[in-house]
Amino acid sequence: MSIFTEFDLMRDLHQAGDKIVLLVMDGLGGLPMEAGGLTELEAANTPNLDRLAAQGTVGLSTPIREGIEPGSGPAHLSLFSYDPVRYEIGRGVLEALGIGFKLGPDDLAARGNFASADADGVITDRRAGRISTEECIRLCEKLQAATGDVLPGYEVFVEPVKEHRFVLVIRGKGLGGDLTETDPLQTGKLPLPVTDESGSAEGVQTAALVNQWVEKARAALADEERANSLNLRGLAKDPGLPRFPEIYGLRAGAIAVYPMYKGVAQLVGMDVIEFEGDRPNHEIDALEENWDAYDFFFIHVKKTDSYGEDGNFDAKVHEIEVVDELIPRILALEPGALIVTGDHSTPAKLRKHSWHPVPTLLWSPRAMPDHVQSFGERVCAGGHMGVFHATNLMPQAMAHAGRLKRYGA
Amino acid sequence: MSIFTEFDLMRDLHQAGDKIVLLVMDGLGGLPMEAGGLTELEAANTPNLDRLAAQGTVGLSTPIREGIEPGSGPAHLSLFSYDPVRYEIGRGVLEALGIGFKLGPDDLAARGNFASADADGVITDRRAGRISTEECIRLCEKLQAATGDVLPGYEVFVEPVKEHRFVLVIRGKGLGGDLTETDPLQTGKLPLPVTDESGSAEGVQTAALVNQWVEKARAALADEERANSLNLRGLAKDPGLPRFPEIYGLRAGAIAVYPMYKGVAQLVGMDVIEFEGDRPNHEIDALEENWDAYDFFFIHVKKTDSYGEDGNFDAKVHEIEVVDELIPRILALEPGALIVTGDHSTPAKLRKHSWHPVPTLLWSPRAMPDHVQSFGERVCAGGHMGVFHATNLMPQAMAHAGRLKRYGA
Repeated sequence: MSIFTEFDLMRDLHQAGDKIVLLVMDGLGGLPMEAGGLTELEAANTPNLDRLAAQGTVGLSTPIREGIEPGSGPAHLSLFSYDPVRYEIGRGVLEALGIGFKLGPDDLAARGNFASADADGVITDRRAGRISTEECIRLCEKLQAATGDVLPGYEVFVEPVKEHRFVLVIRGKGLGGDLTETDPLQTGKLPLPVTDESGSAEGVQTAALVNQWVEKARAALADEERANSLNLRGLAKDPGLPRFPEIYGLRAGAIAVYPMYKGVAQLVGMDVIEFEGDRPNHEIDALEENWDAYDFFFIHVKKTDSYGEDGNFDAKVHEIEVVDELIPRILALEPGALIVTGDHSTPAKLRKHSWHPVPTLLWSPRAMPDHVQSFGERVCAGGHMGVFHATNLMPQAMAHAGRLKRYGA
Repeated sequence: MSIFTEFDLMRDLHQAGDKIVLLVMDGLGGLPMEAGGLTELEAANTPNLDRLAAQGTVGLSTPIREGIEPGSGPAHLSLFSYDPVRYEIGRGVLEALGIGFKLGPDDLAARGNFASADADGVITDRRAGRISTEECIRLCEKLQAATGDVLPGYEVFVEPVKEHRFVLVIRGKGLGGDLTETDPLQTGKLPLPVTDESGSAEGVQTAALVNQWVEKARAALADEERANSLNLRGLAKDPGLPRFPEIYGLRAGAIAVYPMYKGVAQLVGMDVIEFEGDRPNHEIDALEENWDAYDFFFIHVKKTDSYGEDGNFDAKVHEIEVVDELIPRILALEPGALIVTGDHSTPAKLRKHSWHPVPTLLWSPRAMPDHVQSFGERVCAGGHMGVFHATNLMPQAMAHAGRLKRYGA
């Protein structure tokens, strides 16, 4: 018996219609820095976004679940309508996406951590004393040279991430299973062997291969002063998510600067649109140039999140104003639905991602103009979309773009 | 394959953080007595709660499902984040908790009703003419003496509740099964035997034991004028719910006067904090005295509900004001998150529990101060928590107390 999902509903109902633009300002939601103050979005001068809010419908979006502080990967999956709690993506896959590594269907990815160990192999520092990124690059090159061809029939890629973190990818037929991690999660313990919990022949075989690589890799690091061991976590393959273009009947293109966001878009089957430059205006150039080629555009603006994490309230305000000035260029293309939202909140006050629901506006010639006349956290609580789960945004966008048939007679 | 639940999410993400206080005014929500009037909470003078609402986030909580009038047991389970529709607690267990009977893992509990029957055993009055509570106490003592040791190897407890209602507890190894009730649910019918629907050996054996007790008990009542029979309903054991302290990583203490609320807190694994007195100020004394010993406190104020059931609008208003005056003492302890809510509504106008969603405020230094400047049913509809299910409150509290790690990379 098959379970009828919301995706099946979309597959049944979608039809041709107008174009949809999903403009995501990363970490858009904020908080007042002090009692009685305004949030970043409230403080920003945003005449264009305010006009969209006045003409359109607004609400507050919950990215994962109430109270959950989202990572960027799961938060974007939600915006693309995939419940990240249900469609779990292995950390190895997310880490590989984060550095722009193009995972194929035969690839097993793992998050690697360089570590320090004593003469018996017992872990003494799980982060190898937080080595520098330069050191990490050197160690990855060394491992690539020493272990790149130690698994006959398989390709091995060792790629640096940041400080003690790297990505391992093993490529070849028949990899799989439900694999445990080597990290004992505390110092004073021996690393664990990778074991398979799926009980499949494929899993048992893959665990043996990974353990073989780990042994050779640790041997190659033996003469290192600090990073003389390593651990692997989150061993996983691309989970093969249902394809976004197939669910919604949309040619979907992603416009993003950072590898992580291109990666998540690719994971659900969107095309990545390449372009010159790294500022929001360059992204709108790319939108204009590719307008005819797609029905759906995901545009990702990163710096609102970065400034939030820096605690830089004013710079986040400014970046929101930069995006606001570009809105008329998007409207000039005459989309059927334009959504402006964030993947999560990143209040400069907290200097990190947070669980607070995200101000969201949906502009469309078909939208109900609710009472809300400007775009901000507090006013969005009074909008027609209420407080809703981010996974429900895509069906709303589809409807407003005239892309859904009636359900039932 | 196990299904990943919201509880697993909490188990994965919890970390150390600030303290949480969940202050429940039973039956808090109300209605205006006449058109154009104020509710109990709106009419009350609550400067402290209003300040919490202005600084914090508010919303309306749905206890069970939209439109469902909750009993106190399920309503509290919801507040503790257990969906009562999913985690069903047998009525026998709730009845035993309600009289403060401490159920152990070997105990089978049933809700008992004294009844009247004719010479053939046919039920003529399912409530034995609504006998007095004094009569109920006498009958229970009689049954305890006559049937306390009729089941070799098992202990039997017969405890009075109120009027025709009593609790039966059978204690011993190997009790269980899915047991039917004896009550034919209408007069003019014979009582039914207890049967087991689980198909387990344990269930068959338990049904036989219970039927044996029922036979002896009816025999012992044969000379009674009115209560010459009885029925058993809701035969159940403590369902062994997932433990609240383990799910959330919290040392949890319950401060309550009435046995029912202590019982539900114990059912999910909270400690019950004993203290002198029965008024809200005594409860705050207990909070202060035990502040260092716990990370989470559930405080239960009963009389708001009792006055609502009495139809006593003014007394309910006054009790809310009594609680309001105690708020500064809670804030002086510097919790990371303070929630003030009810388990359900009990409008004096209706003189009973109701399904209306419950005004809820969440105060925290990390909260989004929404537009709402006071605490009341109507204004809470414009808050940042929206209209939400009570089971989603705990994750919000955890986030605001800094007790959840980020989900995903």
